[in-house]
Amino acid sequence: MSNDISLAQGREYLAIPGPSVMPDAVLQAMHRPAPNIYEGALIDMVAGLIPDLKRVARTAHNAAIYICNGHGGWEAALANTVAPGEKVLVPATGRFGMGWADTAQGRGIETQILDFGRKTPWDLDQVAEALRADSGQTIKAVLAVHVDTSSSVRNDVAGLRRVLDEVGHPALLMVDCIASMGCDRFEMDAWGADVALTGSQKGLMVPPGLAYVFFNDRAAAARAKMPRVSRYWDWSPRAEPEAFFQYFGGTAPTHHLFGLRAALDMIHAEGMEHVWARHARLAQAIWAACEAWGTEGPLRLNVADPAYRSHAVTALRIGAPHGTALRRWVQDNIGLTLGIGLGMSEPDDPKGDGFFRLGHMGHVNGQMILGLLGGLEAGMTALEIPHGAGAIEAAAAVIAGR
Amino acid sequence: MSNDISLAQGREYLAIPGPSVMPDAVLQAMHRPAPNIYEGALIDMVAGLIPDLKRVARTAHNAAIYICNGHGGWEAALANTVAPGEKVLVPATGRFGMGWADTAQGRGIETQILDFGRKTPWDLDQVAEALRADSGQTIKAVLAVHVDTSSSVRNDVAGLRRVLDEVGHPALLMVDCIASMGCDRFEMDAWGADVALTGSQKGLMVPPGLAYVFFNDRAAAARAKMPRVSRYWDWSPRAEPEAFFQYFGGTAPTHHLFGLRAALDMIHAEGMEHVWARHARLAQAIWAACEAWGTEGPLRLNVADPAYRSHAVTALRIGAPHGTALRRWVQDNIGLTLGIGLGMSEPDDPKGDGFFRLGHMGHVNGQMILGLLGGLEAGMTALEIPHGAGAIEAAAAVIAGR
Amino acid sequence: MSNDISLAQGREYLAIPGPSVMPDAVLQAMHRPAPNIYEGALIDMVAGLIPDLKRVARTAHNAAIYICNGHGGWEAALANTVAPGEKVLVPATGRFGMGWADTAQGRGIETQILDFGRKTPWDLDQVAEALRADSGQTIKAVLAVHVDTSSSVRNDVAGLRRVLDEVGHPALLMVDCIASMGCDRFEMDAWGADVALTGSQKGLMVPPGLAYVFFNDRAAAARAKMPRVSRYWDWSPRAEPEAFFQYFGGTAPTHHLFGLRAALDMIHAEGMEHVWARHARLAQAIWAACEAWGTEGPLRLNVADPAYRSHAVTALRIGAPHGTALRRWVQDNIGLTLGIGLGMSEPDDPKGDGFFRLGHMGHVNGQMILGLLGGLEAGMTALEIPHGAGAIEAAAAVIAGR
Amino acid sequence: MSNDISLAQGREYLAIPGPSVMPDAVLQAMHRPAPNIYEGALIDMVAGLIPDLKRVARTAHNAAIYICNGHGGWEAALANTVAPGEKVLVPATGRFGMGWADTAQGRGIETQILDFGRKTPWDLDQVAEALRADSGQTIKAVLAVHVDTSSSVRNDVAGLRRVLDEVGHPALLMVDCIASMGCDRFEMDAWGADVALTGSQKGLMVPPGLAYVFFNDRAAAARAKMPRVSRYWDWSPRAEPEAFFQYFGGTAPTHHLFGLRAALDMIHAEGMEHVWARHARLAQAIWAACEAWGTEGPLRLNVADPAYRSHAVTALRIGAPHGTALRRWVQDNIGLTLGIGLGMSEPDDPKGDGFFRLGHMGHVNGQMILGLLGGLEAGMTALEIPHGAGAIEAAAAVIAGR
Repeated sequence: MSNDISLAQGREYLAIPGPSVMPDAVLQAMHRPAPNIYEGALIDMVAGLIPDLKRVARTAHNAAIYICNGHGGWEAALANTVAPGEKVLVPATGRFGMGWADTAQGRGIETQILDFGRKTPWDLDQVAEALRADSGQTIKAVLAVHVDTSSSVRNDVAGLRRVLDEVGHPALLMVDCIASMGCDRFEMDAWGADVALTGSQKGLMVPPGLAYVFFNDRAAAARAKMPRVSRYWDWSPRAEPEAFFQYFGGTAPTHHLFGLRAALDMIHAEGMEHVWARHARLAQAIWAACEAWGTEGPLRLNVADPAYRSHAVTALRIGAPHGTALRRWVQDNIGLTLGIGLGMSEPDDPKGDGFFRLGHMGHVNGQMILGLLGGLEAGMTALEIPHGAGAIEAAAAVIAGR
Repeated sequence: MSNDISLAQGREYLAIPGPSVMPDAVLQAMHRPAPNIYEGALIDMVAGLIPDLKRVARTAHNAAIYICNGHGGWEAALANTVAPGEKVLVPATGRFGMGWADTAQGRGIETQILDFGRKTPWDLDQVAEALRADSGQTIKAVLAVHVDTSSSVRNDVAGLRRVLDEVGHPALLMVDCIASMGCDRFEMDAWGADVALTGSQKGLMVPPGLAYVFFNDRAAAARAKMPRVSRYWDWSPRAEPEAFFQYFGGTAPTHHLFGLRAALDMIHAEGMEHVWARHARLAQAIWAACEAWGTEGPLRLNVADPAYRSHAVTALRIGAPHGTALRRWVQDNIGLTLGIGLGMSEPDDPKGDGFFRLGHMGHVNGQMILGLLGGLEAGMTALEIPHGAGAIEAAAAVIAGR
Repeated sequence: MSNDISLAQGREYLAIPGPSVMPDAVLQAMHRPAPNIYEGALIDMVAGLIPDLKRVARTAHNAAIYICNGHGGWEAALANTVAPGEKVLVPATGRFGMGWADTAQGRGIETQILDFGRKTPWDLDQVAEALRADSGQTIKAVLAVHVDTSSSVRNDVAGLRRVLDEVGHPALLMVDCIASMGCDRFEMDAWGADVALTGSQKGLMVPPGLAYVFFNDRAAAARAKMPRVSRYWDWSPRAEPEAFFQYFGGTAPTHHLFGLRAALDMIHAEGMEHVWARHARLAQAIWAACEAWGTEGPLRLNVADPAYRSHAVTALRIGAPHGTALRRWVQDNIGLTLGIGLGMSEPDDPKGDGFFRLGHMGHVNGQMILGLLGGLEAGMTALEIPHGAGAIEAAAAVIAGR
Repeated sequence: MSNDISLAQGREYLAIPGPSVMPDAVLQAMHRPAPNIYEGALIDMVAGLIPDLKRVARTAHNAAIYICNGHGGWEAALANTVAPGEKVLVPATGRFGMGWADTAQGRGIETQILDFGRKTPWDLDQVAEALRADSGQTIKAVLAVHVDTSSSVRNDVAGLRRVLDEVGHPALLMVDCIASMGCDRFEMDAWGADVALTGSQKGLMVPPGLAYVFFNDRAAAARAKMPRVSRYWDWSPRAEPEAFFQYFGGTAPTHHLFGLRAALDMIHAEGMEHVWARHARLAQAIWAACEAWGTEGPLRLNVADPAYRSHAVTALRIGAPHGTALRRWVQDNIGLTLGIGLGMSEPDDPKGDGFFRLGHMGHVNGQMILGLLGGLEAGMTALEIPHGAGAIEAAAAVIAGR
């Protein structure tokens, strides 16, 4: 039987690590006429969004909504807390840690980067050492990426708080939860994060275009001491608006807000604990399949230790050119789109053709993950990439709760 | 690991044998204001639908669109060709063959039913015998269900035409292609069908609400001899309208027509041969998995001979209460909906709890089928239903073209 | 200032007498994946539709939903009550009364037509006379069009019942409410209608594709005496289904049903009395404008007596070629589509270019009607059709409640 | 006739000055699954957006798209051109001129404000005087609001360029076209603007969430001299990206981009000159009605001189409490929403209850405007606010081209 035909015609599955699969309820909620932005239902709806957003971040403190993407969220967090010329510590485990540091540099902030590579989590001892070495306490904030979307490393935020406390360093703990919020467990207040931020388009299941920044009183105090915060980034009026437009520093992002309302309704109907448990189980199913495939042939999970693997995204190594070939095959032949190996090049693979990523964040269930994994099985078979047997059965057993 | 949580939250997959998965393009096309039904763009669009519908049925003859479901299509075909008191021959291979016979009876038509059970195709020798026995040629038409959705038996329409020709019987060959058109190969003119009919909601990928009836000159001649055809069912003005409203015997089904336009665009962009080949390959993948599972445990394909299995729907036997239990488990736990075992009861299973069906018609691709099959694997594992190993790998190999 | 540019780019307003303007809520409700038709939420939803439909028709009796258009509804009503060879009386006030008679003829039913022209309502004395003349009581039913969409004549259904009672004639009173239900007051039980029918696409605000037939016990008794009712039209299983598919004589019209649910929610949230009052007031505003325009120039309301004008549609006479010219101008220049003068030709105007109609049914409010009337003002001005002054002010005063 | 019922149930018309009425084509284009943001169709589509955006702004120079609202657009323009401590000149004719100045202040920029009130345009002589007085040429930029949405004053941008040239002042001419682009004629290159910016939600007919900043080589040179531009606001990589994500400084605003594509298709299909002519004519129709009403009673156009009235928004004075009362009446009774009198308080009307605004931007045609004006007529009648006669006829005559 030759593979002379494509089996791609059908409902496509975008399994990249964001934007994630948009729920029908969200898209429907956004398909509506423009609302009045001065009076009426929109104003009440927005007031109700704030507490529901905070429940996702697990904080009793403040929330600010920004019209921007995650990179804008980085800039917003910095603009309110760290002045040009001041310093931040950046323990990085992938491209996005580096990216936040770059955003800081763009604001004239000095960055001390601890590069932990692209496969392993923070070494908290090294972080502690760096903080202790800062005897003058010039480090104003630690920029901590919870899950680095590029590497799928998940870091220990609560552990980082313990280190700060043990060292007695007053730096703010600022956490990028863009890839993790609504997927991997994150507890802002209980874990002692001072600032947390995320975007709309991953675990929160709304098209890209919004960022959410949460901050506690320590962070608010830092804001109060800033020499200047530009109007667009100032989180104070956004978190405590006197007029409706101040929520958004201008015109409200009307359609996204209706989408957000629908997404929050879905999340809280399921319950945060359940949302996290679902993502955990689906991630375990993916790992089980990948480990089975890896018993023969080149496929490897990028992060060796399951304790540090994200439940939202999985980076994989399969060797060039297999990664890119596999992505192309499943897209052209079965309607499945995988993520590229972002920032994951190696000396003998400068374009990163040996890497790919799976997104499994947000609106994702058992049959979707089994379709994703079955698609990888088919692709490796078609391309004659060696792989171990029993992978889908292993994943199905996890999903079955066995 | 206990299975205390549901993994169903995500995009649901409705894998019942119709209505099928609606393409986004179709739903978008239907989300629009009402159009003018007296002048303008709608009128031109409808004229263009007719030839594109005929290309799906593989006929150069006539097409009539009805606002009704498939049962209405049955009635339309009979209303134009067989008068009350006349007789039809019905070779049945499942519930829908019986249903068409019942519709004929409801019109006062005498029915001679050849019941071939619910697992095997027509025995053409028996059909030939029945036709020969009709020395007075009182049988006006043979009501032939191409694929019976309930049993997933696919019958040999071209063979039936040969039998009619060999016997020299003038009865019309009228074919129900509701489950097959746009999925299983069907060639109205080449195979010698006089009438063919289908519904909107399966291979044609539009919500239920329309039926399409195709007829050739022999059928038109039969119509001309009818003592009376009621206005709503009369296919003559629908096929050759002098005014726009006659296409639909009244108000046009505006939104469905836009959906149909989008669906026909998708079908013809892919090409009929490719559409059929895709369905064939995906069906083979399903069969490969089911045969692997069946090497141990109770799962069996309802139709033993692959030559008579539909490429659009697959009926399965797994024994009560496994069928119903499996359906419930995949719906509640992984977001997958399977078809019930329609009309498939047995003496020790009066409610049909031992049967279920998979729909794989229309907007369906490789990753969807692998998700469907992975879901069955997970369900049987969760419910501890014995099943053979290697099923998904077998299916993936078919999909991979290996 | 020359009129060298079009001002049509913008939101179009389809002011034809059906299909009417579709509410966003209805279109949104229809933009969804196909649901399971064997189990689950759809089954419960449909059960809830029936009583809400009956509340619209003001009946405590039976309702059957058909997948068809209004012409199909005519056929359904006849199929259950009048056998071929039997006779009906048809008091007609426009094209649709004639159309229902034609449908009866197509079923082999004898029709006695009382043609009251296209401008005036039934003459109930003539109806009484015809009934009295039927000493053998061979008339099985009176086919009564409540509002004839072509002429916009609204007839006195309660008066017709009184006539039947006074004469003591047992014929069923069957009422076509296609243009009136959900717009003009109609009280099936209180007015003594035995059968009432309507379509989805006018006052009920859902795209064309469904008809609703209501019937009381007298009509059910007539059904019981019919020699045969074909499966598709038989209202008995639809009104009292034992299995879900019987509601629709086959596959359910899934997406239309979700649209219907949304429309019924809107209607009953507003309340039937309020719905009728709104339509009445808006119709009065239209009449006030038309009467003002008519003080100079050719524009005339087709129905002279306000007591017999529909609240859902208004037919107008303006003389050829003004009617067609006006329709074209408002469509090409300001984004407004008017209805053609259906069936309204006259000897010196064989194509009906001197007529047009306004639809004001369903999802229609004050600003829409004022836009419609303002558009007529602009069109008559552009085309230099003489017309009286103060028309919009007169309409605005009605809308203002002054 | 008492006004005891609401006539609001129907399609609502949001006639506020932004967000404007969203075209169905735009909302449909946004109702789609998330696309791949790394490869494929989205990447090509975005490349095609840039030249089509520039055609709207009438520039051959550079365009940058930002995920933000108009206030973010203000900040973006400043961030690339004026450093903290530097100075800008702000000739203000309403709240939004003041708002841009405030944004500048928030960035530590010194502002010299020329307040021309809220009813009249810039006095270019005063501007010239201020520029001449800046002998040290410390003014880096003039922040010029083309149309101030709050006052509906339209200023003479080309005239301002002439003043700069005559004075020989090198300050950049930066123009806020938020309310005007796609409505009022604006020619960036021909008029000599160095920077122009707008938002997505007014003349460009897409939900709020994007800002577009256009800049020429002079502005690019100013950017090159900036000591630092933060990553999110830096327009250089956005205008000349090396990688796709740089267009948006991070994740692309996927769904808005599809909406933008649809909107640009509509705009260029109509043609910029035609778009401007349509807005001009519709504005003239509004003025004609308002002037007629104003012959008796309190209604007045806020801007006396037609040469300085916007074609996109019209601010009106009617005296407290009539403005607010009128807005409420048309909303509650006829489904029409008007804009509040933003920032238009007066000593005896501290809450601005005597003002209101009409938005007539983007997706707006003749019948909509006539509905809007008819609604005002009805509202003033209902509330017994004195007003002159013949207003709608005057407007209709303009729309008719008479």
